Amino acid sequence: MIVSGGTVVTMDKKRRVIKDGAIVIGDDRIVFVGTKRDAKRRFPREDEIDAEGKVIFPGFINAHTHMFQVLLRGAAFDLPLLEWLKKGIWPFLEKFRENDVYVGGLLGCVENIKSGVTCVVDNHYPRLFDPLIRAVAETGVRGLIPRGFYETNVPDELAQSPDEILTDLEKLVKKWHGANGGRIMIGVAPMIAGFATRKLLLDAKEVADRYGLIYHVHISETMGDLDLTKRTHGKRDVELFKELGILGPRFHAVHSVWVSDEDIETLALSGSHVVHNPVSNMYLGSGVAPVPEMLAAGVNVALGTDGPASNNNQDIIQSMKFAACLHKVNKLDPAVISAKQVLEMATLGGARALGLEHEIGSLENGKKADMTIVDMQRPHIAPVHDPVASLVYCANCGDVDSVFIDGKLVMENGVLKNIDEKKIVDRANKVIGRLKEMIAL
Amino acid sequence: MIVSGGTVVTMDKKRRVIKDGAIVIGDDRIVFVGTKRDAKRRFPREDEIDAEGKVIFPGFINAHTHMFQVLLRGAAFDLPLLEWLKKGIWPFLEKFRENDVYVGGLLGCVENIKSGVTCVVDNHYPRLFDPLIRAVAETGVRGLIPRGFYETNVPDELAQSPDEILTDLEKLVKKWHGANGGRIMIGVAPMIAGFATRKLLLDAKEVADRYGLIYHVHISETMGDLDLTKRTHGKRDVELFKELGILGPRFHAVHSVWVSDEDIETLALSGSHVVHNPVSNMYLGSGVAPVPEMLAAGVNVALGTDGPASNNNQDIIQSMKFAACLHKVNKLDPAVISAKQVLEMATLGGARALGLEHEIGSLENGKKADMTIVDMQRPHIAPVHDPVASLVYCANCGDVDSVFIDGKLVMENGVLKNIDEKKIVDRANKVIGRLKEMIAL
Repeated sequence: MIVSGGTVVTMDKKRRVIKDGAIVIGDDRIVFVGTKRDAKRRFPREDEIDAEGKVIFPGFINAHTHMFQVLLRGAAFDLPLLEWLKKGIWPFLEKFRENDVYVGGLLGCVENIKSGVTCVVDNHYPRLFDPLIRAVAETGVRGLIPRGFYETNVPDELAQSPDEILTDLEKLVKKWHGANGGRIMIGVAPMIAGFATRKLLLDAKEVADRYGLIYHVHISETMGDLDLTKRTHGKRDVELFKELGILGPRFHAVHSVWVSDEDIETLALSGSHVVHNPVSNMYLGSGVAPVPEMLAAGVNVALGTDGPASNNNQDIIQSMKFAACLHKVNKLDPAVISAKQVLEMATLGGARALGLEHEIGSLENGKKADMTIVDMQRPHIAPVHDPVASLVYCANCGDVDSVFIDGKLVMENGVLKNIDEKKIVDRANKVIGRLKEMIAL
Repeated sequence: MIVSGGTVVTMDKKRRVIKDGAIVIGDDRIVFVGTKRDAKRRFPREDEIDAEGKVIFPGFINAHTHMFQVLLRGAAFDLPLLEWLKKGIWPFLEKFRENDVYVGGLLGCVENIKSGVTCVVDNHYPRLFDPLIRAVAETGVRGLIPRGFYETNVPDELAQSPDEILTDLEKLVKKWHGANGGRIMIGVAPMIAGFATRKLLLDAKEVADRYGLIYHVHISETMGDLDLTKRTHGKRDVELFKELGILGPRFHAVHSVWVSDEDIETLALSGSHVVHNPVSNMYLGSGVAPVPEMLAAGVNVALGTDGPASNNNQDIIQSMKFAACLHKVNKLDPAVISAKQVLEMATLGGARALGLEHEIGSLENGKKADMTIVDMQRPHIAPVHDPVASLVYCANCGDVDSVFIDGKLVMENGVLKNIDEKKIVDRANKVIGRLKEMIAL
């Protein structure tokens, strides 16, 4: 299949932007990236998708979210992290049934795919993993699911024993890791250092190493989180994970808002990755992560929307604009971060964090055909002087036209294939109708 | 005509939110706000528009922009204010022909209306006012056009003499002020204090008073602007306009980023209005306006997108989210500003700034029927717990379903009536094609 006629933003080493470009897909992989003319000469008999006036990007990677929260977005707002958790998230967790989480997962995946996300990191927490992973598998999105756990310092009904956690983790790995043609990956996710003992942090690392899993942790998201880590473990988050030998190329330091210069150096030297969630950090008043400093130190930074209850959407394109604008104003310097850098965070940055930089994150020969086509001939985008600036500063999730995952067209002209979007929205409304009756908001 | 079945967010004194609500329109005004049941009983024979599952808001007011810049969005980016002006804006100004500005105005109006804006303040600058105002009039949007002027401290080709400025201003007032059924209003706009002499600032005030015009000025947008005012006039911006006797209920202190506590007190006491442009202030790295302090001091704050070249769109819904999130993170306090407050800035705040709080800004009996209907049954918004939070934190310009201005349905189900959107985008692309050839970007 040839996708032709649009501008191709490759994100390859030369950062080529090809006008009147084309991508040719063979099965699940890209077999050609170049001009439309060359593509038509070399692949004359392929089916063609016309991308005239549109821009083809590598599929976006949403490197941190909690998709079930789509059901809870707006249940509590304009509140600090802990009050928000206590009012808008935790009371619901115990009430959710299997089907609720499944429906939340479906809606979350639909929203991510419609926002141009082809790979999502869903840090699901304590209960009901199977229905969430089923939703990811059914919608076809590439998904890393770090299995979240609470051991201590949380309400009793949320806490789980180390045995329970580790047993369930192994079970999930055996059942799901590598499923769906490799598109489903399981990870390990103590929610924050302050909610676990050192022993469990290390035992989880052992499981991660045994199966080659990603270790994904909320690091110093708020000053309160950092204080809790210090009180619980006597150290800053990054110091703790360094001492435990857990940092490294399979470690995700999610948020990393309240990290010191030394922490940044430590993250860089260890090859750990940071996942930046600008909207959530602003929405919850958590703080500004020192992203320009991280990039300068050579830390790989990926981009996430965070859960829909602290954002309150999964629009990764909007998160790109927030990321760029937040750091510009924070440093009073519009040159401190560029549109190109935030696009890299949402593509190659995410790919590197997942250890998949040879498979996804750019449009190159031999890579997986994960791609997102954005319509830029709209009155809030046109005319286009630079497709990357137009994406980051003008566009939003509603402008995503078509999406390919693993070479398969999952959305065309704004319409999902094989997924009844309206039905999923209706089901989510019904779940919330029931929960609202049970819990006085 | 009855618009019925949706949730009505009235923004009336009691801030009523009416489920299964209805609005009845008679000519250009609202004649009923209440439940669908009552509406159908009292107005049984009216035509009906079904807003089931949607939310009806007062039309949004975009209180500061420069619409012609749609042609230049993305021409320069990731640069500070002055470099951005010199690279991305000023070189084009002299090259624009009448038709270019007209097309830019049309596209700007289309984008504003499609974002749910029913009233726009377009601070157009030095040249070609008539084509811009013609575009506003033709698209039907309610528009205040403050006539911008540069007198001094700018490149020669941009500067105009006081005579030229004042003569042209009077001409515009006589031709346009009150035109289009009162929907077109002219205003006075020295671009910044540092680009004009005290004499011209005062002479412009005299014209404003004579015709009852709004006086609209960029105030302390950047530290550099504030410094220029101090160097040119020996005072801070707010002090200068106070001393000149120009502050008051018809004065717009646009941006007001670098204002002191005393400046805020002065603005409050004088009844002046602030127009907050969070995206632009972030995009250009200008700074964070002390909006929570302004609101606490009793200053009326309106919301603007600013020009599309420093944003780079006209999505006032996106600007609401930026406004809320910016101040939360700036104060590390998510409660410092609420979704309700930013919606008020984009509705009643704008209405007060225009002296039109008895005509627009809320959905109440007797007011003009300017309203915006937002579809919330979409996968990035549903389910809805609170329609105001869902608007501010989940929605974007693409979710605006229908728009009424002066009782007239100008957009229905996402499609503009009587305006060929695609043709306008094509015309804008052609203008830019020509300009790009003339000026090496």
